[in-house]
Amino acid sequence: MKNIIEEVNFRIKRDGEDLAIAVAQDFKTNEVLMVAFINAEALEKTLRTGKMHYFSTSRKKIWLKGESSRHYQLVREILIDCDGDALLFKVDQQDAACHEGYYSCFFRKIENGQIKVVGKRIFDPKDVYG
Amino acid sequence: MKNIIEEVNFRIKRDGEDLAIAVAQDFKTNEVLMVAFINAEALEKTLRTGKMHYFSTSRKKIWLKGESSRHYQLVREILIDCDGDALLFKVDQQDAACHEGYYSCFFRKIENGQIKVVGKRIFDPKDVYG
Repeated sequence: MKNIIEEVNFRIKRDGEDLAIAVAQDFKTNEVLMVAFINAEALEKTLRTGKMHYFSTSRKKIWLKGESSRHYQLVREILIDCDGDALLFKVDQQDAACHEGYYSCFFRKIENGQIKVVGKRIFDPKDVYG
Repeated sequence: MKNIIEEVNFRIKRDGEDLAIAVAQDFKTNEVLMVAFINAEALEKTLRTGKMHYFSTSRKKIWLKGESSRHYQLVREILIDCDGDALLFKVDQQDAACHEGYYSCFFRKIENGQIKVVGKRIFDPKDVYG
């Protein structure tokens, strides 16, 4: 596991952290669910537990996806890109990925200079986050 | 078009540039092709030409994907995530996305502590880049 982590190029520096980009994708449909950052410790926890952990650049800490919502992302497959600074996680998304209640964080489409909601709302954030 | 660009949160600061994350995905299969950075000017050029432009953090300049290889990415759909700092481009990939000759830059899988090539090689980089 340690060797794998050494293969990743955590080249994005932010607040003293060395980060790579993590993309989560639905393992069945290939729908992209979210994009966030990951550091070595979050990757180690992800590999060990099988649940996605990210590094939150706003809260400046490791973040188990689903820690408050229980909307975990169960990892099914991991791919690494050519220069090693981005990881693609194919996941089994529990309930929905977006804190706004949509299945994917990419629930808005840009079309003809407008932004319109195209995603399906799965839950009401008030019910989950209080 | 200007309004759309103002909706994007170019919050990743790097070498004086304000960047967002750009994910390119095959518009037919949803296969993720690559992840890179984009700035306002690259996004404006992408919207205007219909061809993906990124901001290269290594070369520190706008980069028309395919400018040397002619492996352009023709934009079919654009999605924006909940906090506006990541864009998802569904594209019609000409030939292949990866400079190493694979269709996707995510041509390597991490499995049981090993990295193995799972992608299909479409071209020999020597033939394209000389």
